[in-house]
Amino acid sequence: MSEYHAPLRDMQFVLNELGYLDQVRELPGCNQLDAELVEAILGEAGKFAHGVLSPLNTQGDREGARWCDGEVSTVKGWREAYQRFIDGGWNALSCNPEFDGQGLPRVVSALVEEMWNGANLSFGLCPMLTRGAIEAIELRGSAYLKQTYLAKMISGEWTGTMNLTEPQAGSDLAAVRTRAEPVGDGTYRIKGQKIFITYGEHDLTENIVHLVLARTPDAPAGVKGISLFVVPKFLVHSDGSLGARNDVRCASIEHKLGIHASPTAVLAFGDHEGALGWLVGEENRGLEYMFIMMNAARFSVGVEGVGLSERAYQRARAYAHERIQGSEIGAVERSNVAIIRHPDVRRMLLSMKSRTEAMRALACAVAAAMDCAERHLDPAVRQESQALVDLMIPVVKGWSTENAVDIASLGIQIHGGMGFIEETGAAQHLRDARITTLYEGTTGIQAADLIGRKIARDGGKAIGQLSKQIYRVMEELAWTDDPQLQANASALARALVALNASVEFIVSHFATQPARVAAGAVPFLELLGIVAGGWQMARSALVAHRQLKAGSDDQDFYRGKLLTARFYADQLLAQVESLSRVVVQGADAVLQMDDQQF
Amino acid sequence: MSEYHAPLRDMQFVLNELGYLDQVRELPGCNQLDAELVEAILGEAGKFAHGVLSPLNTQGDREGARWCDGEVSTVKGWREAYQRFIDGGWNALSCNPEFDGQGLPRVVSALVEEMWNGANLSFGLCPMLTRGAIEAIELRGSAYLKQTYLAKMISGEWTGTMNLTEPQAGSDLAAVRTRAEPVGDGTYRIKGQKIFITYGEHDLTENIVHLVLARTPDAPAGVKGISLFVVPKFLVHSDGSLGARNDVRCASIEHKLGIHASPTAVLAFGDHEGALGWLVGEENRGLEYMFIMMNAARFSVGVEGVGLSERAYQRARAYAHERIQGSEIGAVERSNVAIIRHPDVRRMLLSMKSRTEAMRALACAVAAAMDCAERHLDPAVRQESQALVDLMIPVVKGWSTENAVDIASLGIQIHGGMGFIEETGAAQHLRDARITTLYEGTTGIQAADLIGRKIARDGGKAIGQLSKQIYRVMEELAWTDDPQLQANASALARALVALNASVEFIVSHFATQPARVAAGAVPFLELLGIVAGGWQMARSALVAHRQLKAGSDDQDFYRGKLLTARFYADQLLAQVESLSRVVVQGADAVLQMDDQQF
Repeated sequence: MSEYHAPLRDMQFVLNELGYLDQVRELPGCNQLDAELVEAILGEAGKFAHGVLSPLNTQGDREGARWCDGEVSTVKGWREAYQRFIDGGWNALSCNPEFDGQGLPRVVSALVEEMWNGANLSFGLCPMLTRGAIEAIELRGSAYLKQTYLAKMISGEWTGTMNLTEPQAGSDLAAVRTRAEPVGDGTYRIKGQKIFITYGEHDLTENIVHLVLARTPDAPAGVKGISLFVVPKFLVHSDGSLGARNDVRCASIEHKLGIHASPTAVLAFGDHEGALGWLVGEENRGLEYMFIMMNAARFSVGVEGVGLSERAYQRARAYAHERIQGSEIGAVERSNVAIIRHPDVRRMLLSMKSRTEAMRALACAVAAAMDCAERHLDPAVRQESQALVDLMIPVVKGWSTENAVDIASLGIQIHGGMGFIEETGAAQHLRDARITTLYEGTTGIQAADLIGRKIARDGGKAIGQLSKQIYRVMEELAWTDDPQLQANASALARALVALNASVEFIVSHFATQPARVAAGAVPFLELLGIVAGGWQMARSALVAHRQLKAGSDDQDFYRGKLLTARFYADQLLAQVESLSRVVVQGADAVLQMDDQQF
Repeated sequence: MSEYHAPLRDMQFVLNELGYLDQVRELPGCNQLDAELVEAILGEAGKFAHGVLSPLNTQGDREGARWCDGEVSTVKGWREAYQRFIDGGWNALSCNPEFDGQGLPRVVSALVEEMWNGANLSFGLCPMLTRGAIEAIELRGSAYLKQTYLAKMISGEWTGTMNLTEPQAGSDLAAVRTRAEPVGDGTYRIKGQKIFITYGEHDLTENIVHLVLARTPDAPAGVKGISLFVVPKFLVHSDGSLGARNDVRCASIEHKLGIHASPTAVLAFGDHEGALGWLVGEENRGLEYMFIMMNAARFSVGVEGVGLSERAYQRARAYAHERIQGSEIGAVERSNVAIIRHPDVRRMLLSMKSRTEAMRALACAVAAAMDCAERHLDPAVRQESQALVDLMIPVVKGWSTENAVDIASLGIQIHGGMGFIEETGAAQHLRDARITTLYEGTTGIQAADLIGRKIARDGGKAIGQLSKQIYRVMEELAWTDDPQLQANASALARALVALNASVEFIVSHFATQPARVAAGAVPFLELLGIVAGGWQMARSALVAHRQLKAGSDDQDFYRGKLLTARFYADQLLAQVESLSRVVVQGADAVLQMDDQQF
């Protein structure tokens, strides 16, 4: 069984050579983060991912989390791994130092997260959800909530969850029905059912802190009447010790296509007296607070896509090197070769590799912007960075996860018939990846957010800025003396024209023909993902070109990078014009079909 | 649990209105096949698929076939269903009437097969493999083999298998090692291990007839030294009764991503004295015979893709009609609607529907050509039809199955988070579909066959003929008075230009730069599939246009057909130019990467 290896060389390339570490090192609290320290952190994380999390991944898939009488047992080995995880301080990596977090910038912690996801997505989900809950309490919780929960959640002693979905309220949270009755002493009694709660119940820690959307009695209808509550599994005494069991119960866990080891709980709040809950922030502003967590979680799910893609690529690459089958095309004498010699296998591997590297670099670009948006001293830079973050989160989420599904499927394809056999391991990656385009907002929801709130609302300003940035990189490529890079520049230039045409269509039609624009929202998200990935691959090609000119002795890496960028330009950027045509002209039939004609 | 419904209206449209039934009714033995008789057959098959096979599909997935001590138990209910299947005469539908088959043309039996696959792929595989074995014995078997096996296999009393793969011999059958030692009395002793044998062992029938590739002692190396043998599970006395157990044993069955109810066997031949086998045809021509079966099987796997796509579409459509979530975009007042009102859901449904209908019509076009190639009185028509069949089998196989994987995945996506829950049923379709791009030759193998044997070898003649046929349909569209159809014509015309450019590249470079052409083989297969599907959608649009002009009262169907064709032109044909660019210009990086740079 081949285990996951953290792609340290490429991660270092993105941080150090694409300049994202330098970008955040200017920020307050980050000046001690030199390349060596980051390399040490990534190296240790890589060891943990490889040695502890990856070996549990297959077993987690086969055994799965188990429900019995309201209790959930995680897979054998999970508790020990979790203990080592929090003992190592990994849970606190990006958290606030004020509460014993390590305060690492997002651009570094995102790469560490990529490792957890690549090695064992079912495991990685637990700290990911905890982090979201931490952020909500930290940003909007009362002093009592912060003092009671933050330190234990940051250390990982307790975990956190996000309780949004109900059977009738999935993408549409306006339909949330869970009720919260004020007790009179500032607390509330919560009653209702929540579904799809990741790690909603488990045996890893002695307490679980649920963040729950619910309605107070006089709340307005719809999204403006939803409040956010902290509902712990066990009540907490003022000295921090655990008190009575709260009235929240795990009614069952789901039987899913993938991420079997991650328990997905149905939670029943208030079967008896009502679960005690504490309001976060103000009443009726719960959705706003939830979206703080949600945006962070969406970015993290995008990073899941990167990690799973890397994992699927590593497995397929190893198989392609090992598996001997057939002779080389055009060879004069028949001799059996490893299948990596077959052009179609190479095409599939390059498709996996080039997209994975583009997604990784793009996620880091956005993570660095998150850091700048949070910490930069210049408010103008903060604002500009936040605009990029807002624009690109749906793309990082939607594009990286759609890619991950396709890349995991290609990973199976490279294995031939063996790919369909569960013991091979390739199939699990597809089953696991398949959730990522669904949770934390489907790709359709990301795309609707992208065209509406992120592009039409500011009249295309933020995306115009991005487009200019990409244009400058394209010019740099075009000015090199290398015909290959010039060809990349042409592909990127054509792609930019197609992007700009799509944006113009969206901005000019969103108000008057919103359904027509919405019909092309997902193709547009894919288009923007490909162009933004192309921007990062173009930057990578420029760096590789300079390194090779300067006589770097890491020839294989940089030549591979150049060719990967070339492939991306030839085969990914080539799709952009078709996508643009679909965005601009593809909606007629979508809008004209009557429901009964389907 | 919603069950599969045979899409009878669209099947009748393809047979009667696209003219494929008329095409085969001219053939000897087919003149009694009027539309009513065919409608009755399809109606009965549809009932069987809906009422018997579909209800077993979920249970088959959950329970799976089970191995114990060399015996395999099929899922509860499977034996009864199989008995009803053969009692109903369904096994013999397309078989030779000389051996009590019903001699139905392929164009009809393919649609019936689509139903078995749509309702329950794991079940449908058993008769599919039996039919392949029947064809090999019928075409190349001795009188003894025909007399001993054919009637019982055609009735379904015994089943058949295809034994090609060995651990070291997957796509590359030259590596087959199983040995066949002549006994001296005309029989052989077979020794070796075969893997991935669909229904290689089961409890549905009292005998199983294995068709096995093996090498005789003095056989030349490579593909020219492979012979084909009949190896029954139980030997057969001259009176047809069963004799001793042959020396073939099921060592295990595979634990797979999907098609759980279809046992995939590891078969050990000759652990003791050697399994008795009978040569089919001449020694060393086994691969040639196997390819007769293989081509038929490849077509059938393409039809599996159609059936699974239809199934996934039906389930997603039903959910989209039922699930209430969110309000309609652009609506003045907020009111919750079924998700089929959301443009992105409609886009996904139309993508599923349009490709499924295009694949079905294309499969029938090829099936009708198979019938003409076999039965037409004019040798010139036979030859021309065979050329189309040879050209299009890799496309029907490769394109329909790649689509099926994507369509099943879209089916999950339409269900949102519910799609990831196994009980919903959508996930099984993806897991089942995932095998279809792998077995009977991966998509890469289909594409290699397409560019090499089917296009380069005849200098592009057969595809040139097809291209002309499509051109004529495009002209018909352009000559209508309908701007929508004229727009479809433009899209098809552009697609034809892109197709022809790709073909020219393949034909002119295959001899001198085979690796460069091979790097674009799969994108080219996709391109050709889209254009060929567009040909069928264009024909469909013409028929629908005429019907609407003539005042047909089936307005919804024909308007739906027109809009489906429009969507196909706007969103599928739109991809062809990008694919052509990839075929012609996309290979540089694929060829230049060193193995260690991956």
